[in-house]
Amino acid sequence: MTAVALPLAPTALPTPADPARWRAADTAARPARLERFRARLAAESVDAYFGIRLANTRYLTGFEIGESHASVAGLSGQFLVSADETVVLADSRYRAQAIEECPSSRVEDAYGDLAARWPALVSSLRPVGGRDGQVTRIAVEAACISHAAWTRLAAASPDVEFVAADGWIEELRQTKEPAELERVGAACAVADAALTRLLPSIRPGVTEHDLALALEWEMRTHGAEALAFDVACLAGPRAALPHGSPTDRPVASGEVLLFDFGAQVFGYRSDMTRTLFVGEPSAQDLAIYELVAGAQQAAFDALIAAAAAGEHPGNRVIDAAARDHIAAAGHGDHFGHGLGHGIGLATHEAPSLGRLAPEAPLPSPTVFSVEPGVYLDGVMGVRIEDLVLFDPQAARCERLTHFPREVTIVGV
Amino acid sequence: MTAVALPLAPTALPTPADPARWRAADTAARPARLERFRARLAAESVDAYFGIRLANTRYLTGFEIGESHASVAGLSGQFLVSADETVVLADSRYRAQAIEECPSSRVEDAYGDLAARWPALVSSLRPVGGRDGQVTRIAVEAACISHAAWTRLAAASPDVEFVAADGWIEELRQTKEPAELERVGAACAVADAALTRLLPSIRPGVTEHDLALALEWEMRTHGAEALAFDVACLAGPRAALPHGSPTDRPVASGEVLLFDFGAQVFGYRSDMTRTLFVGEPSAQDLAIYELVAGAQQAAFDALIAAAAAGEHPGNRVIDAAARDHIAAAGHGDHFGHGLGHGIGLATHEAPSLGRLAPEAPLPSPTVFSVEPGVYLDGVMGVRIEDLVLFDPQAARCERLTHFPREVTIVGV
Repeated sequence: MTAVALPLAPTALPTPADPARWRAADTAARPARLERFRARLAAESVDAYFGIRLANTRYLTGFEIGESHASVAGLSGQFLVSADETVVLADSRYRAQAIEECPSSRVEDAYGDLAARWPALVSSLRPVGGRDGQVTRIAVEAACISHAAWTRLAAASPDVEFVAADGWIEELRQTKEPAELERVGAACAVADAALTRLLPSIRPGVTEHDLALALEWEMRTHGAEALAFDVACLAGPRAALPHGSPTDRPVASGEVLLFDFGAQVFGYRSDMTRTLFVGEPSAQDLAIYELVAGAQQAAFDALIAAAAAGEHPGNRVIDAAARDHIAAAGHGDHFGHGLGHGIGLATHEAPSLGRLAPEAPLPSPTVFSVEPGVYLDGVMGVRIEDLVLFDPQAARCERLTHFPREVTIVGV
Repeated sequence: MTAVALPLAPTALPTPADPARWRAADTAARPARLERFRARLAAESVDAYFGIRLANTRYLTGFEIGESHASVAGLSGQFLVSADETVVLADSRYRAQAIEECPSSRVEDAYGDLAARWPALVSSLRPVGGRDGQVTRIAVEAACISHAAWTRLAAASPDVEFVAADGWIEELRQTKEPAELERVGAACAVADAALTRLLPSIRPGVTEHDLALALEWEMRTHGAEALAFDVACLAGPRAALPHGSPTDRPVASGEVLLFDFGAQVFGYRSDMTRTLFVGEPSAQDLAIYELVAGAQQAAFDALIAAAAAGEHPGNRVIDAAARDHIAAAGHGDHFGHGLGHGIGLATHEAPSLGRLAPEAPLPSPTVFSVEPGVYLDGVMGVRIEDLVLFDPQAARCERLTHFPREVTIVGV
């Protein structure tokens, strides 16, 4: 197969007019999201749903309470879905915000012990699926709610059965609407521009920590409302750590320099990895780089072919395309993680592209990372990560991260 | 009672030599921490403990895996305490770090499904309390572990009883060692210096968002390894929102400007609120400020008297001292939250100073916030928050946050 360059998707930096437009698009899309979700609830024979994950809250209710609040929000942001309502919990700190952002939801006070008010709250819900009478089976996000909270609420309403639910809303979220793709693209544009502006300040002697901070700053002062995750900046042998944190180690000439970073724009994330060379690369380092780039291209080729044919390949097939390329060069053991992950309101979400991921055809339209890597313990590592917009129904397969994938030499 | 100024505790900005010294102090303190904790386990008649909260992991094992990793770390950072061991879970991404930071712990692989390896892991533990035989009762952090994880692990070892534990390690953590107090003080020094440097850039027309970002930058480029929490910067009527987020609203002359912010230094946090005046304050705003400052002083007075007498007052008594002062001026309904909270490896931890907090004498030595506020909906709000080092055994009661509490006028 001849390598074909992946076309670049159009992306644009966010403008002050965008948030109102995106909020309106979400509001318009929400009834259809809820209709699909209630069909799932009916198919699972549950009467209602109790959600905990803040990304799910935002998706189904519009409450813009972010992950940085997770450790302090308490009950605020937890939500219920019934036949005809969404109910959002908000304590006094968040009440005004919830009322403004969730005009279609009932906002319930979330002070003190929820268990005391739980029976009345459940009684106020109408069961999904057109059934008359009381709600008696509630799906609960069991992978997210604490055991203590589950136990207290279950004891408060002994006649109501709790059903452990996991991934139901995440399954809806993996298919992206145009305004969602636009925001992921805007986050990519912020990250692309930030790394481009950072390049002149990369030189031997600067520390990983200072470069990571400078890159964060470029994003947050040029369109990012937050980071998608802490910036990784790893030089030389530390680039072999797939999730290392930046240190005060200075960058040296002749080393690789790996940046893994992402921006957040109106709730949506980007994620990109570039491995640069500080000064002229050694032939060996260059060979590893070309190997990883070739592996990424092998995955792109498989995706391009599938998109052109209007097909939905399995997630493991795409992983295998890249993995086989690396294994054929004898480096199979040096690529320990999966090939990629979906991205949106969460940095890591469905679909998962990996050899261990549950086998399933890729959804569409969707967006995910393609990030092969080769890590030589104590020596060096290379990872190249791009986000791909994949929509075989529209014969689209495009790269959202525009920063060049070619060998980039800095600090000379 | 005559108002007595609270003495300032000595604090210092962190230096490059500090982390190694602090790490050594933690290592030296850890056996005593574990001894106290195992005595608690024995008193609760449990054989071992399964911990989830990363602040607890760091306190008992030294694994420096921070809160920003919580959403991506998976099992990494979860830990077990038995009669003679601490066991730390770490997947391949965190293994090298765990081995380096936890030389006294057994580091166990944390790949895939823990339930499959759980019975063998539990069998490898020796029960606390000198009992022979197998571990059959394990305390688990039920308020933190997900219901799904609890259920899977409980099913994997049906002969092992899980006991819901909450706050056992947090109770130890509220008493602070000298090297812990030093780090809270260093975080305070970073925050003090940052706000001081920010003052000249505060002027009408600058947005809340830009001031919050600038204050964050001052902290993170001058000693803070991270923020303790997102900076709050709220102008005018928005200062009445106890936990609002900064917006693109420009600051106007004649308004109050509230900053609530904190730094993190080698794991430990600071927390401070200052309400400044942009231009000359109105007599009414000034009166509210003086009322809140007086309420804070009333709490200080009660603490000073207790420390001088070597007494441990109840947490609600201190809250009442400040609250009564505000209520006497007719603003009792405008002070909706508790007076303060402990701080350390977490921004909010025990002890809790509030009218609803479980009644208990204050521990010592400890550190907590004293943060009365008066919030006039839609009009303005004032909160003044300082951290107090309280150690009645040493007759010490000192302020760790040094930025002046007096009326501060900026932007003129």
